Amino acid sequence: MKFAVFGAGRMGERHVANVAAHENAALAYVVNPNFERAKRLADRYGATACAGPEQPLADRTVDAVIIASTTSTHVDLITAAARAGKAILCEKPIDLDMARVKACAETIANHNVPIMIGFQRRFDPTHKAVKQAVEGGEVGQIEVISIVSRDPEPPPLAYIRNSGGQIHDQMIHDFDMALWISGATGRVEVFAMASSLIDSNIGRLGDSDIAQVLLRFESGAFCRIDCSRRCVYGHDQRVEVFGSKGMVSSGNVSQSAIERFTSSLTSARDPLLYDFMQRYSHAYALELDAFIKGVSSGLKLNPSFEAGSRALQLADAARTSIQRQAPVRVDIGE
Amino acid sequence: MKFAVFGAGRMGERHVANVAAHENAALAYVVNPNFERAKRLADRYGATACAGPEQPLADRTVDAVIIASTTSTHVDLITAAARAGKAILCEKPIDLDMARVKACAETIANHNVPIMIGFQRRFDPTHKAVKQAVEGGEVGQIEVISIVSRDPEPPPLAYIRNSGGQIHDQMIHDFDMALWISGATGRVEVFAMASSLIDSNIGRLGDSDIAQVLLRFESGAFCRIDCSRRCVYGHDQRVEVFGSKGMVSSGNVSQSAIERFTSSLTSARDPLLYDFMQRYSHAYALELDAFIKGVSSGLKLNPSFEAGSRALQLADAARTSIQRQAPVRVDIGE
Amino acid sequence: MKFAVFGAGRMGERHVANVAAHENAALAYVVNPNFERAKRLADRYGATACAGPEQPLADRTVDAVIIASTTSTHVDLITAAARAGKAILCEKPIDLDMARVKACAETIANHNVPIMIGFQRRFDPTHKAVKQAVEGGEVGQIEVISIVSRDPEPPPLAYIRNSGGQIHDQMIHDFDMALWISGATGRVEVFAMASSLIDSNIGRLGDSDIAQVLLRFESGAFCRIDCSRRCVYGHDQRVEVFGSKGMVSSGNVSQSAIERFTSSLTSARDPLLYDFMQRYSHAYALELDAFIKGVSSGLKLNPSFEAGSRALQLADAARTSIQRQAPVRVDIGE
Amino acid sequence: MKFAVFGAGRMGERHVANVAAHENAALAYVVNPNFERAKRLADRYGATACAGPEQPLADRTVDAVIIASTTSTHVDLITAAARAGKAILCEKPIDLDMARVKACAETIANHNVPIMIGFQRRFDPTHKAVKQAVEGGEVGQIEVISIVSRDPEPPPLAYIRNSGGQIHDQMIHDFDMALWISGATGRVEVFAMASSLIDSNIGRLGDSDIAQVLLRFESGAFCRIDCSRRCVYGHDQRVEVFGSKGMVSSGNVSQSAIERFTSSLTSARDPLLYDFMQRYSHAYALELDAFIKGVSSGLKLNPSFEAGSRALQLADAARTSIQRQAPVRVDIGE
Repeated sequence: MKFAVFGAGRMGERHVANVAAHENAALAYVVNPNFERAKRLADRYGATACAGPEQPLADRTVDAVIIASTTSTHVDLITAAARAGKAILCEKPIDLDMARVKACAETIANHNVPIMIGFQRRFDPTHKAVKQAVEGGEVGQIEVISIVSRDPEPPPLAYIRNSGGQIHDQMIHDFDMALWISGATGRVEVFAMASSLIDSNIGRLGDSDIAQVLLRFESGAFCRIDCSRRCVYGHDQRVEVFGSKGMVSSGNVSQSAIERFTSSLTSARDPLLYDFMQRYSHAYALELDAFIKGVSSGLKLNPSFEAGSRALQLADAARTSIQRQAPVRVDIGE
Repeated sequence: MKFAVFGAGRMGERHVANVAAHENAALAYVVNPNFERAKRLADRYGATACAGPEQPLADRTVDAVIIASTTSTHVDLITAAARAGKAILCEKPIDLDMARVKACAETIANHNVPIMIGFQRRFDPTHKAVKQAVEGGEVGQIEVISIVSRDPEPPPLAYIRNSGGQIHDQMIHDFDMALWISGATGRVEVFAMASSLIDSNIGRLGDSDIAQVLLRFESGAFCRIDCSRRCVYGHDQRVEVFGSKGMVSSGNVSQSAIERFTSSLTSARDPLLYDFMQRYSHAYALELDAFIKGVSSGLKLNPSFEAGSRALQLADAARTSIQRQAPVRVDIGE
Repeated sequence: MKFAVFGAGRMGERHVANVAAHENAALAYVVNPNFERAKRLADRYGATACAGPEQPLADRTVDAVIIASTTSTHVDLITAAARAGKAILCEKPIDLDMARVKACAETIANHNVPIMIGFQRRFDPTHKAVKQAVEGGEVGQIEVISIVSRDPEPPPLAYIRNSGGQIHDQMIHDFDMALWISGATGRVEVFAMASSLIDSNIGRLGDSDIAQVLLRFESGAFCRIDCSRRCVYGHDQRVEVFGSKGMVSSGNVSQSAIERFTSSLTSARDPLLYDFMQRYSHAYALELDAFIKGVSSGLKLNPSFEAGSRALQLADAARTSIQRQAPVRVDIGE
Repeated sequence: MKFAVFGAGRMGERHVANVAAHENAALAYVVNPNFERAKRLADRYGATACAGPEQPLADRTVDAVIIASTTSTHVDLITAAARAGKAILCEKPIDLDMARVKACAETIANHNVPIMIGFQRRFDPTHKAVKQAVEGGEVGQIEVISIVSRDPEPPPLAYIRNSGGQIHDQMIHDFDMALWISGATGRVEVFAMASSLIDSNIGRLGDSDIAQVLLRFESGAFCRIDCSRRCVYGHDQRVEVFGSKGMVSSGNVSQSAIERFTSSLTSARDPLLYDFMQRYSHAYALELDAFIKGVSSGLKLNPSFEAGSRALQLADAARTSIQRQAPVRVDIGE
């Protein structure tokens, strides 16, 4: 399967390396408006660099595109790639504007191309094991999902300024996690609170660095999400699913399996893997593999475009809840 | 120190046994409206049984009372004991009606007797170590307190009917924990949601069996509380305090330290201690010891009457939040 | 059941307190050659103090004796108590001289009194759960038992001088554990090495402070024992039983359930319970309870006199192995 | 750096893949007596296949060889590669015959080529962290090293027949670990016992499947090694280093970070990574990287040829101890 990768930033590099390493994938193009940057990355793997999407989309030997460029370009690239008949793996979020997402959905519906949204956590072996345990009935009826999601340090202010805000940029993953694990449909009540406690510059931008969300699904089950831009002991990312028959949880991953015992402490572990790139290094490779297998077999891809859209609905509702200081109801459909 | 214990139910029995075992305490009276019940318990320890409070309160050799009778009797017994000049250890909650609590506070202020409210968790060695770590600056500025509080199974419906509801009966402990750990004062935003997912009979009583609360303190820090009436793996009671310098957590206690390794699992522990009586067995003894030492030394007792009042304020606010489906602000004072 | 307790040292105090607290036991006598010491302890519980065993053994209302005096007095007290028809709970070791133990066994055989040896670890809930898991077939065929046994700090030199040495004093518990868990009978190969690495004064006494033993049972299964007189993080006492179907282990117990997370470590626990008195505080009470129930029901008591004798056989063999620098075989019988 | 890899079995495949993936390495040749096998592997990476070592050793563009062929060929290939001036990474053990190892050492001494022995565990991040903690003084004076080393299931009987026996084939890694962690030199006492408890066919071959070794170093410190050919819960590989200031340990690695809580168990983890290939997948890549960096920088490589020789000395001593049923002393030099 021949790939063009859009974006040559941190995420682009990751996808390019994974495509190059996958036994059933070949890297054909790296695309970036800054051509020099595209070229440096393309040269490392013997691929062609482009400043714009025209050539790779016109190239009939290209089977698939990975969209890892800035969020604002996603919808246009999805649309163009769908028109060109390419399979699409697009980084989250699809867009920050729900109206654009809906319009995009309508447009691409006609072209019927395979599309997957890059919620890579679903491919993490531990989160996946939790999902399977839940589906296998191990927790019985779900009562409470509890998610902790902490990055080691805030991104640069320049990034934050264009990120769409903590809820849309960071917590979007947690919304997808909540919906994926719960399998919830229909009506969702959303209540959110957010503070800027870590960096007052973030507050001055009108954004938060610590956010709390409480969801209630139609079943009456709850999901609580605790999200922070800073965590000194590494990438703290945990999911607990509690129900009538018990609990399964997705724990953290330490940098090693050493334990220390001294006169003042016992069983002390190392700090956690530092950030999502370390923690999900393996998950990104598994995501690509699932994409390739899914496209090859013609099955519906997951996480779907609709999953990306539903996560955005919850993010929009959470933002509204913060503004109104009140719970908000949304219907995420079937 | 000579004691009269009011109440011969489960909590009364616990306190009676602890008084009998304490080297600086003597059990003089067990009081219960059902005299037979009082007598059975009193006889076991060579104490005097009474159906009413008159005799023990009139007995000038009695130094202190423990009030472990039903909640509706607390305020009257506190008032009478204060008038009789006895030191008081009263089970939580003081009362379900804030107006009565305030009136009681005013009345007893004149009598100036030592009084402690029975939030026994504060004497649990692990929770206490967490409190000390927080005070010692180990987590830096507090950002998020996360509390999980799950009983193994719902109490009988007859108990629930008179309990004041899950928020006032069960979560009152978590509100005290939140305030104690955070040291918060002033304004608190309270948002709560509650469902009946476990036993529809509880729902029919208008009560909940799973409740979620989100607090925001004046500092901007959050506290999230997850409370359930049923947990198949035992008494799940955890506190995490997360801040600028790290996290300290209060973990669960398993029934033993065995671990199992088979072809399908590793490091499997036993279920948790079953309920609060098992988990806090030691804490109740330490609570009594702190009471005795505090009264003897003349120092201000903690948890204070005001602590009991503030926890009730948060419970009232949470109930109001559920009714209004909106966040509620309260001022808990200095 | 009326008790006389011989010994008013650390172990005597523990047993006296447990007898006083047990609902079916009454403390009648405390016996110690130093009468003042006996009196101080007896007075605390309203019992009678004696300097010698004559009075309590002659008192026909006394049902049972607990022998917690110095090791050299055990055999004589066992013999006298058996002649007086008292049930006996005797601290380990029975004696340091196997010939005396055998002679004692023969003498008491005629009197047919209930006798239990104080290997209290068997009553620890975790070790007991391990034993039950093994008996329930959870590990399949036992292949390797691994025991770690570390005290926080060496006892005083004065104690060590009369202790019989590390193998007989400290490791005797581990030999009982090995035999109890494995249920081994018949021939045992014993190899031991010992060093003085911790305190050169111990070495100068001809004793060791770190000892290693390797056992092979008739089944071919192994037991390895790692024993140390010092451990800075507390009382490190672990048992692993590994077999054809998996492993069960008996883990350590921390002073609390707090965990700490900082920029340099995660999940750090507190130090372990400090010494055997802290770790086995509950086990001693359960041991007494089992003794009382066993005597009342007329069932054979465990750990039996023979168990004490077999543990001594292994200790003797280990000492011989160290002297000969060669493995030694013993037959511990059926 | 251009590589020839000798061997196209399981280990050969692993090294070939790592060379292909390393940014500073290129795979030139795959060598195997079974040419078809060499070809299949070479073709996958665009390398040249050979049945014998002549062509790659004569090729002056080849910088380094990796010897992953059967043990009996190691010494001849090392010698030939040294004569050809190639840098050498050779799998353990160097040979099963100490006389041949010594002769090999003398021969290659003249050629002065960089050589590293493939004790890959030294590159595992956790074991390495333990080594660094020990060197950093965290455990103080080492008193006891405890190693558990269990493979999930025995290798095929055909393999075992030519393996040199469990001590030389499996435990050789543990001997290197013991010497590496302790930094021991000089005299070592070695006592070993071994049984065949798992598969009687292994016993019939005169080999063992469970082995126990006890070492005492000149310092008086001990090392105990517990080695098994079968472990139903995966690859159980642990190292504990205990000393005057505390303990550091290298723990196991579970297949995921899921934990399960039910009415009968809590905190249950998944089975361990299955075997050494899964557990040390990353370590093999780090080993190659260290080899490449070491050769490039001209520094002395570790683990050295001498390390391989010393581990073999201990294995020989352990075998002798089993035969003589007595401890054996060896001098491993400075």
